[in-house]
Amino acid sequence: MALAQLLLEDDVRLVSLRGGIGAVPGVRLAGVHAGIKTRKRDLALIAFDAPNVCASVVTTNEIKAAPVTVSAGHLAQSGGAMRALVCNSGCANACTGERGERDAHATARQAAALLEILPAQVVIASTGVIGVPLPMDKVQRGIERAFAQLENGGKAAHDAAEAIMTTDRVPKLAAYSFYHEEKKYVVGGIAKGSGMIAPNMATMLAFVATDLPMSQNALATALSAGTDESFNMISVDGDMSTNDAVYAFAPVGESEPPLAFVRALRQVCLDLALAMVADGEGATKTLTVHVTGALDVAQARTIGRAIINSNLVKTALYGEDPNWGRIIAAAGSARAGLDATAWSLVLNEKMWVEIGAIEALSEVEAHRELELPEIVVELRLGLGDARATAWGCDLSKDYVRINASYRT
Amino acid sequence: MALAQLLLEDDVRLVSLRGGIGAVPGVRLAGVHAGIKTRKRDLALIAFDAPNVCASVVTTNEIKAAPVTVSAGHLAQSGGAMRALVCNSGCANACTGERGERDAHATARQAAALLEILPAQVVIASTGVIGVPLPMDKVQRGIERAFAQLENGGKAAHDAAEAIMTTDRVPKLAAYSFYHEEKKYVVGGIAKGSGMIAPNMATMLAFVATDLPMSQNALATALSAGTDESFNMISVDGDMSTNDAVYAFAPVGESEPPLAFVRALRQVCLDLALAMVADGEGATKTLTVHVTGALDVAQARTIGRAIINSNLVKTALYGEDPNWGRIIAAAGSARAGLDATAWSLVLNEKMWVEIGAIEALSEVEAHRELELPEIVVELRLGLGDARATAWGCDLSKDYVRINASYRT
Repeated sequence: MALAQLLLEDDVRLVSLRGGIGAVPGVRLAGVHAGIKTRKRDLALIAFDAPNVCASVVTTNEIKAAPVTVSAGHLAQSGGAMRALVCNSGCANACTGERGERDAHATARQAAALLEILPAQVVIASTGVIGVPLPMDKVQRGIERAFAQLENGGKAAHDAAEAIMTTDRVPKLAAYSFYHEEKKYVVGGIAKGSGMIAPNMATMLAFVATDLPMSQNALATALSAGTDESFNMISVDGDMSTNDAVYAFAPVGESEPPLAFVRALRQVCLDLALAMVADGEGATKTLTVHVTGALDVAQARTIGRAIINSNLVKTALYGEDPNWGRIIAAAGSARAGLDATAWSLVLNEKMWVEIGAIEALSEVEAHRELELPEIVVELRLGLGDARATAWGCDLSKDYVRINASYRT
Repeated sequence: MALAQLLLEDDVRLVSLRGGIGAVPGVRLAGVHAGIKTRKRDLALIAFDAPNVCASVVTTNEIKAAPVTVSAGHLAQSGGAMRALVCNSGCANACTGERGERDAHATARQAAALLEILPAQVVIASTGVIGVPLPMDKVQRGIERAFAQLENGGKAAHDAAEAIMTTDRVPKLAAYSFYHEEKKYVVGGIAKGSGMIAPNMATMLAFVATDLPMSQNALATALSAGTDESFNMISVDGDMSTNDAVYAFAPVGESEPPLAFVRALRQVCLDLALAMVADGEGATKTLTVHVTGALDVAQARTIGRAIINSNLVKTALYGEDPNWGRIIAAAGSARAGLDATAWSLVLNEKMWVEIGAIEALSEVEAHRELELPEIVVELRLGLGDARATAWGCDLSKDYVRINASYRT
């Protein structure tokens, strides 16, 4: 909350850029077709010209994929001097036992050999089917191909963003420039994820970089704040996949980052998170839930997440059904200290249900509001001044179709 | 666990009876059409010939419907001498403010007047749409009509079970007889609920009675144990609806109940819970998840629930997709102490994935198993001797259709 207020009060100017992580000076990358998938790009390589500090937020699932644990080891070993990231789609390399670890290590070794760095300077990520070993011959060919194509810029970042997609319909990129001591810097990222908007386990990956040097601690603090208000507000911690990971990179430096960087990083995370929501599997509508009047941010966040993760809220949204009872029942189920006599509900900036459960919008009026593609609900708790925002999407028949691959 | 073991070792003989709660001597009931719904039965009245102790397990949702809070007050006031229960469907009387409480009190008063008992001797329950006031003229007419039809037996119980249905496709009844000191007694119940099998908020109601006299404490202990192994293993506590409630009744007595009663009550709860699973909204398959080899029952239950509540597991089941990675990822997301190197998975009593993630069934073989309508998965944790069972169903396109009423 303190952070969010500072950001609002401050007049830092961010300029949106094209090119995602490819807009960051000192970052070269490529996305290629390695053959793990039948036709589409499936392997991305990112190389940093200088040693980078790296901060991460990874899955809390007790089943962690090999790339997650191997990368954690690499970060512990040489976290202050990372040089590259390899990510494949089409295979999660999760539940693959010792072979999975060997394959992840081999992937890092191979990228390191080509880039003339140490294997422990490479972060590995994978996304796709669980329980299937990585086809290492294809991965090897892909890394070689990607290495030959490494370059800075938007085209390469677009290819890389495509190469990490699974059920995503569109590649996800975001970048902003900001000024620090009269010099221009950039924060940019790419991400994948669409299923995770539902309360489930489809993987979310995000890779973010900047050219502003800073310490590892400073980067970690900024990343934690950024993810709390973005990726963590479109998903529920307890439902993380085996492969979820966010990695942020910055050239090695001593200084604490300026507020402008913190804000730019948060904005990149937010843009990427909202791109995931808009690309939710089978989604036909997006839902923004502002929880206001909360005792503290934790309460607001817990209640916001409970609402966006309710299957009944999501199906009502899909059906454009003005069933506000499902929203308030979802909020109450979070057991976060809701006062049943103090709340009110606002729909697309129109008072919907006033304190005491008095409907201010008729059913027909509310239904009309729900016909819009972007729905904004504000739940006023009437308890304090804190607030948080959560983002979600509807649950459609297409979600079931996409996730029930055999039958449909 | 201690209870379950005792029950298994013991040779109590239960005999399944028809008639649900109507099979219990001293219980008269009726289910009628009051006009709250357009055509179907929508009001049930249950009357006990003698004063009954009553134990309850009700929603932990912070938004509690008026009938839940009013009934809690009645139980506090005259919990040792309850005489009746009124339940309507078609309207939840939730989020209806002070009017909702007045209406619930008026409902109890009216039943009490006809039955010549005190209003505080009446339990009230409602299920249906949230935020709409009870149509009290119709409720009144319904109570009068039901009072005129009160009788013991299966026909009346069937009508009452129908009258409390919402999206249920079939009425749910269960009853067992048991012997205590050479005398035969009965435990019987009716229930409604189908949507709640998904991780959402549709209401579950169950009303159970026996003719064996006992103390309120004894009944409460037995009910708590029974619900822990039945209703609580098909739903997640945190996701309870505004109206969820289980009420159990027994004639006032001093004695502790015998094991035979505890077992019969548990079996009634289990039968009713499994009837809900089989009737899950849009369900085409049922899923039984045995979690074995756990450190303790709590761990086994937490992991079992995480699996049956995963949208990705449920859609894979619908699609007959042998994607075991979703099952183990759901188990890991529960963060209950899973050892990633020790588990194995059994499908319909055939080894599916052995320790170390080695597939013992081919994809084709596993797919063939999943074509069956009743799927049984055993997750062996490899940690200890405790176990628990959870029950669920698949997530189909019909679930979305049923819950998105406006659009489809």
